[in-house]
Amino acid sequence: MDILLSESIRQIAGKLQSWRRDFHHFAESGWFEFRTATIVADELHRLGYSLKMGKEVIKADARMGLPPESVLQAQEQRAIKQGALTKWLPHFSGGFTGIVATLDTGKPGPTLAFRVDMDALDQNEEQTHVHFPYAEGFSSCNAQMMHACGHDGHTAIGLGLANILKKYESQLTGKIKLIFQPAEEGTRGAKSMAEAGVVDDVDLFIAIHIGLGVPQGELVCGSDNFLATTKIDVTYRGVAAHSGAKPEEGKNALLAAAHAVLGLHAISRHSEGSSRINVGVLQAGIGRNVIPDYALMKVETRGKTNEINEFVYHQALNIIDGAAKMQGVEYDIKLMGAAQSSQPSPVWVDFIYHQAQQHIPELSSVAKSFQQPAGSEDATYFMERVKANGGQATYLIFGSQLSAGHHHERFDFDENVMKTAVKTLATIALHLPSFEAT
Amino acid sequence: MDILLSESIRQIAGKLQSWRRDFHHFAESGWFEFRTATIVADELHRLGYSLKMGKEVIKADARMGLPPESVLQAQEQRAIKQGALTKWLPHFSGGFTGIVATLDTGKPGPTLAFRVDMDALDQNEEQTHVHFPYAEGFSSCNAQMMHACGHDGHTAIGLGLANILKKYESQLTGKIKLIFQPAEEGTRGAKSMAEAGVVDDVDLFIAIHIGLGVPQGELVCGSDNFLATTKIDVTYRGVAAHSGAKPEEGKNALLAAAHAVLGLHAISRHSEGSSRINVGVLQAGIGRNVIPDYALMKVETRGKTNEINEFVYHQALNIIDGAAKMQGVEYDIKLMGAAQSSQPSPVWVDFIYHQAQQHIPELSSVAKSFQQPAGSEDATYFMERVKANGGQATYLIFGSQLSAGHHHERFDFDENVMKTAVKTLATIALHLPSFEAT
Amino acid sequence: MDILLSESIRQIAGKLQSWRRDFHHFAESGWFEFRTATIVADELHRLGYSLKMGKEVIKADARMGLPPESVLQAQEQRAIKQGALTKWLPHFSGGFTGIVATLDTGKPGPTLAFRVDMDALDQNEEQTHVHFPYAEGFSSCNAQMMHACGHDGHTAIGLGLANILKKYESQLTGKIKLIFQPAEEGTRGAKSMAEAGVVDDVDLFIAIHIGLGVPQGELVCGSDNFLATTKIDVTYRGVAAHSGAKPEEGKNALLAAAHAVLGLHAISRHSEGSSRINVGVLQAGIGRNVIPDYALMKVETRGKTNEINEFVYHQALNIIDGAAKMQGVEYDIKLMGAAQSSQPSPVWVDFIYHQAQQHIPELSSVAKSFQQPAGSEDATYFMERVKANGGQATYLIFGSQLSAGHHHERFDFDENVMKTAVKTLATIALHLPSFEAT
Amino acid sequence: MDILLSESIRQIAGKLQSWRRDFHHFAESGWFEFRTATIVADELHRLGYSLKMGKEVIKADARMGLPPESVLQAQEQRAIKQGALTKWLPHFSGGFTGIVATLDTGKPGPTLAFRVDMDALDQNEEQTHVHFPYAEGFSSCNAQMMHACGHDGHTAIGLGLANILKKYESQLTGKIKLIFQPAEEGTRGAKSMAEAGVVDDVDLFIAIHIGLGVPQGELVCGSDNFLATTKIDVTYRGVAAHSGAKPEEGKNALLAAAHAVLGLHAISRHSEGSSRINVGVLQAGIGRNVIPDYALMKVETRGKTNEINEFVYHQALNIIDGAAKMQGVEYDIKLMGAAQSSQPSPVWVDFIYHQAQQHIPELSSVAKSFQQPAGSEDATYFMERVKANGGQATYLIFGSQLSAGHHHERFDFDENVMKTAVKTLATIALHLPSFEAT
Repeated sequence: MDILLSESIRQIAGKLQSWRRDFHHFAESGWFEFRTATIVADELHRLGYSLKMGKEVIKADARMGLPPESVLQAQEQRAIKQGALTKWLPHFSGGFTGIVATLDTGKPGPTLAFRVDMDALDQNEEQTHVHFPYAEGFSSCNAQMMHACGHDGHTAIGLGLANILKKYESQLTGKIKLIFQPAEEGTRGAKSMAEAGVVDDVDLFIAIHIGLGVPQGELVCGSDNFLATTKIDVTYRGVAAHSGAKPEEGKNALLAAAHAVLGLHAISRHSEGSSRINVGVLQAGIGRNVIPDYALMKVETRGKTNEINEFVYHQALNIIDGAAKMQGVEYDIKLMGAAQSSQPSPVWVDFIYHQAQQHIPELSSVAKSFQQPAGSEDATYFMERVKANGGQATYLIFGSQLSAGHHHERFDFDENVMKTAVKTLATIALHLPSFEAT
Repeated sequence: MDILLSESIRQIAGKLQSWRRDFHHFAESGWFEFRTATIVADELHRLGYSLKMGKEVIKADARMGLPPESVLQAQEQRAIKQGALTKWLPHFSGGFTGIVATLDTGKPGPTLAFRVDMDALDQNEEQTHVHFPYAEGFSSCNAQMMHACGHDGHTAIGLGLANILKKYESQLTGKIKLIFQPAEEGTRGAKSMAEAGVVDDVDLFIAIHIGLGVPQGELVCGSDNFLATTKIDVTYRGVAAHSGAKPEEGKNALLAAAHAVLGLHAISRHSEGSSRINVGVLQAGIGRNVIPDYALMKVETRGKTNEINEFVYHQALNIIDGAAKMQGVEYDIKLMGAAQSSQPSPVWVDFIYHQAQQHIPELSSVAKSFQQPAGSEDATYFMERVKANGGQATYLIFGSQLSAGHHHERFDFDENVMKTAVKTLATIALHLPSFEAT
Repeated sequence: MDILLSESIRQIAGKLQSWRRDFHHFAESGWFEFRTATIVADELHRLGYSLKMGKEVIKADARMGLPPESVLQAQEQRAIKQGALTKWLPHFSGGFTGIVATLDTGKPGPTLAFRVDMDALDQNEEQTHVHFPYAEGFSSCNAQMMHACGHDGHTAIGLGLANILKKYESQLTGKIKLIFQPAEEGTRGAKSMAEAGVVDDVDLFIAIHIGLGVPQGELVCGSDNFLATTKIDVTYRGVAAHSGAKPEEGKNALLAAAHAVLGLHAISRHSEGSSRINVGVLQAGIGRNVIPDYALMKVETRGKTNEINEFVYHQALNIIDGAAKMQGVEYDIKLMGAAQSSQPSPVWVDFIYHQAQQHIPELSSVAKSFQQPAGSEDATYFMERVKANGGQATYLIFGSQLSAGHHHERFDFDENVMKTAVKTLATIALHLPSFEAT
Repeated sequence: MDILLSESIRQIAGKLQSWRRDFHHFAESGWFEFRTATIVADELHRLGYSLKMGKEVIKADARMGLPPESVLQAQEQRAIKQGALTKWLPHFSGGFTGIVATLDTGKPGPTLAFRVDMDALDQNEEQTHVHFPYAEGFSSCNAQMMHACGHDGHTAIGLGLANILKKYESQLTGKIKLIFQPAEEGTRGAKSMAEAGVVDDVDLFIAIHIGLGVPQGELVCGSDNFLATTKIDVTYRGVAAHSGAKPEEGKNALLAAAHAVLGLHAISRHSEGSSRINVGVLQAGIGRNVIPDYALMKVETRGKTNEINEFVYHQALNIIDGAAKMQGVEYDIKLMGAAQSSQPSPVWVDFIYHQAQQHIPELSSVAKSFQQPAGSEDATYFMERVKANGGQATYLIFGSQLSAGHHHERFDFDENVMKTAVKTLATIALHLPSFEAT
């Protein structure tokens, strides 16, 4: 069986690479994955999966950090010029770029879901020969959009897995769902799919990532320690006035923001675990001799647990509000992203651990856990929802050599990791009948 | 006439000095003038003035910066031990230490009021031989109470004037009121007397001060530029917690106060004139390892006009409130003092100017106006009230050589100024029939 | 004489209008007045004035708020496309856009200088039919550059005056200098011309402005109360770090800036007169989850006197420095503009006042002074330099009806004011022999 | 053996109680333990221990948080009145209230040290019948000094242990040192004894505490997680000025402190573990209308490791310095206390664990470790010094029922814990020959 599977994967290796490089070249940031989504949909349809797309799998008002309608439209036009398949585009129009593909074996068994994400980051890619994607001609052609986190690989893995699972359908049981999620960067997209109910029938859940500091050839079966996080944009609006002639007529939005910045950073530590606060961006005022009438702050809170993040976030709301009152200015808060903390399910992790050790000799090492260094991931929304319904969930990391750290302009990964990932995930699906969920 | 008057004043010169030195020795701070008030009442009664005292001339809830009842009682006991006349004490008990003495000539004519203040400052006096009051044995015997502003002289001038006016009663017209006010320091007392209506029948009003940087021998007939002011105590109350074990359980009153301090000082300048803000005192917290659960701020705002002071004060209220909300703490604000801005009435100033030039050769110089350097004075409450009722009001300064600046621990003045003051004020009263109030 | 002069001005009225509208259409911001300067130079040369230009009249390192070289070059290219006279352009290349034209009568007499400014503001102009310049087809064709302060009119007045003075040269005495200054907005240009010595031989100096709230038909002979000012850009540079993973590795430039903003606004009031402080713009940080490694603040200080402005500026330097040390970040300060306070010379104002009353019946009203409401003007550099050398100086305002306030996107003025201004200024020059400078 | 020991302890139970109650009644705060120390010295001398005291065991300039000389003298007088043994007093005079008693068995073996602390807290004790010490007549007779942490019990345990060890001297080996430490509260005293070298010959070290949330009857053999801490007093000194008349002449110490408070609380979290910062007390300014010329802050930093505490402390120094520079004020920093983080030695903990399980049936439960909830303890100075010299060290907690939490005005403990403690510590000493230090 393992040998057959290896051969099957060898056969699609070229496809994995070409998908990945295509997605990398036409990198699309969160909620803009129009071209990517149509290509994914087309392949899954071709394979015979039952598809749900767009508003069927995304709850509109649970989307976070959504760009303005005009920008979404411009990006959709960009996607069309870059080869988006117009046949599928209407499903995704308006920023509904998610897909759920289901394979129902008709046989009894649990529902197993795999989640991959599709979005790029809002940054420019290195465009010199030292950078492999540029040297090979597949670096991003879109300004301020770059796959610098490996989601291009994740999407390709998802399609590769879809091919393999279809091929071995007869040996599978229960139902398998493949979830292609938009806007993971900034932790903006998962909540809208989770709230649309896409994992409500799922018994076993796996999200994946490549790289993340795990060495090439190593598999982590239960990545741990994702921080809960809330990401908000805060806008203060005051009243402008000439700073020389009539300063008393102003209501100073920058003063409010300066108080807020200091107040936010001074939120108390929590005795029960790590917390974080950051005001990463502040933009205020229009001219040197004008009392600033607006200020925009990009803020994020984090906590080791949802409770600690809630504590910090609640304090932050008080501080933002009080600072506005100090200066008599108005404000609004826009939720731009959020993720939860979530612990992998131990029994499910154990099962995966043993399957990997037994069946994937390509892996030089298999670990049960790995402490994420204080990052956040919105797959936790799916994990918590599955667990709340009595299911089991985990987060896998496939180690890979990286040319530069995640989010770096020269980020790249060893494409071989995609084969290992597809093989491991398919193996888990194929051996599921031996899993006992206690 | 002038010569007779000079002779009369020469006769009471000794009394002026002994009154002043007695009051200086038994210095009593604002609302504690129990001993002083009984002595003043007794003398005015002896002279035959009609007296109103205590609650008759002070509106209880318009008093500002009143110490706690227990402290008032202790001070009353102290006053008794120091010779307060118990016969009069009940009038003043509980912090009602004001007196209004009226001389009704029975003849037609305007009602003329003179106001003097009686309180000392909350500070220790120099107790060494370089300081004249100590060398002469009349420095303050009360800790943290010292006549470092000359109000002992003002009270003596008031009594001296009462003697002279009584002596020349037959030559006077209309009514004359002598107002002995408590708690001018901190601008706490005048409002309560003004609101009790003590100047509501007054046509012409004069408040006086000695010194203030005006050279010895000079008279200022219309001191100008008093800043309007509001003085408040702000207390923040949060929740204490162990700063190591459970910092998140605290609500930090000191953080609120720190934001307030910075916010208050950052209140905008006003394009229409001078403004001031100060947090003169901040006391917060109980122990190094406890999240501070309280903070006390002593704050004052000032403005060239009542409107500017109102602007600053209104901003201050927002800032104090917003800072509390930032930290989730409670607060209360106690009004501790207030004064208004007030312009002298020009026609009345002119009249005094000409009387002084004509009749008081002791004066080396007479000026119509003098710009107070950004201080405040609550006689302005009387002035504004008189003017609002159609009367005229002014503020006189009798220049004097000082041994040290006002509020200095070695402050002292040349006692001769008291004679000049009594003569000038009596002269104004005696020549009032020649005044035409247009 | 007055009638002849009126007729002469009537003859150039068309030119005044076409100059003004041409300059308005091709509005050029400070240090970018390439096209304007070549046209001015060409006309003055045609009239026979002796010219000094560019580096002859501008001290390179005394220029403030100079844009980067690349931007200057791009603007010079823009000017060429818009008709700049390439014959004169080399003089002005690199941001040296000033001209001084001299008419030496050869007869004895004082040296009289007139200063006008040529720059537009960095803002867009209203482009709808409600706005007269748009309706008439001469609104600005340059984005982010608009004559919203009337300097287009000033330049036209300068050229009109040059024409008239040349025509009446035989009746003039002494020397006359016409100064065309760049970059008055932001008070950036005058210092560089003053330090180049262009008024060092000047006995009598006049700077002009139109509008400024003075009613149509009124002349102010000695505008007063310009605030001294200093304008700086402050950049903090820290160290970026991931706010979740390694916050302790960051050095937070935004925290430094937030402290600086609060500290700057809390600079003490000054008892000797008005002061101002503003942080008009703050831009900091690059991403929500990154510790901000830079922050830019646009700051200005002002004071009723140079001393008060110096006080505020000195305090500001301490605060900026201390805030950097608090966070361990680096900073630099760039001087972007400055102006002084300056009082008009009374005898010179009187002379102009009487000339205007006698000879300019078009004026409905002539005033000696007018309190500028807390604005700043760098003509004060010329005024102070002339006065320091024993000369006399003043600042004239020619009232005009405005369609909207200065710096408004719909600002426009009544073009008739240009004729009145030229006639008044020429009249002063022609009657100079009757002036006695005591 | 165990039975004999139990009997011996039963015999001294009354002494334990009377010592404890005597120390409780005459509670003495840190560096004031004059009476306590003389009684301890007298008893140890009586038993025949070799004593080192005062300057022999305390390095003068390593003492932290030492009160002024005048206060020390007054407290020494107080101690004399309360029965301090004047024979021993000279050793401790001036705040050198430490004792080290040595028992040298003459037999080979390791040097074992026990450390107890003797100081009370700066707080008042409940003086009502609900409070057992009051009801029994032994509540504190000293204002602002109360044994609210159990150190009275520790001292009694130390004396009880001295008695037992002397009695069983023949069965002991090596050397035993009993360290009686002053000023543990505020973590002020241990450093001065450690730096005097008192544990430099120690191979095995035990510090003890009672209570701390551990249940009655339970022993913790290796208390863990003490936070490293640094405690400082910061004084800002500026220049006072009248806030109305000459605000610009002030240098505002309160503004500096307000910036420091906000800056300190905004020190970054550390990714490697817990940190803490607190400004527990701020006192600033002398009068409402005076620019504050001084401000005192009581600050403490903490960290899970010495490195994290160092990080916070170093940031704090920058912030304190920068805030001073912002306002042009001077400052000084006084070290008031410090403690380190320290891990118990595992092999030594294991040994104690097994001894306790085997020999102390009174213990209902024995635990190896217990996470101190973010408190600090300066016994860590001894622990780290012993470990640095190759020795082993740990910190024992003897659980006890408490009437109220530590540092509460109604704190009290079950006195039976003293017997258990003496028995356990003596047992460890008696079984030491069986310990193998690997």
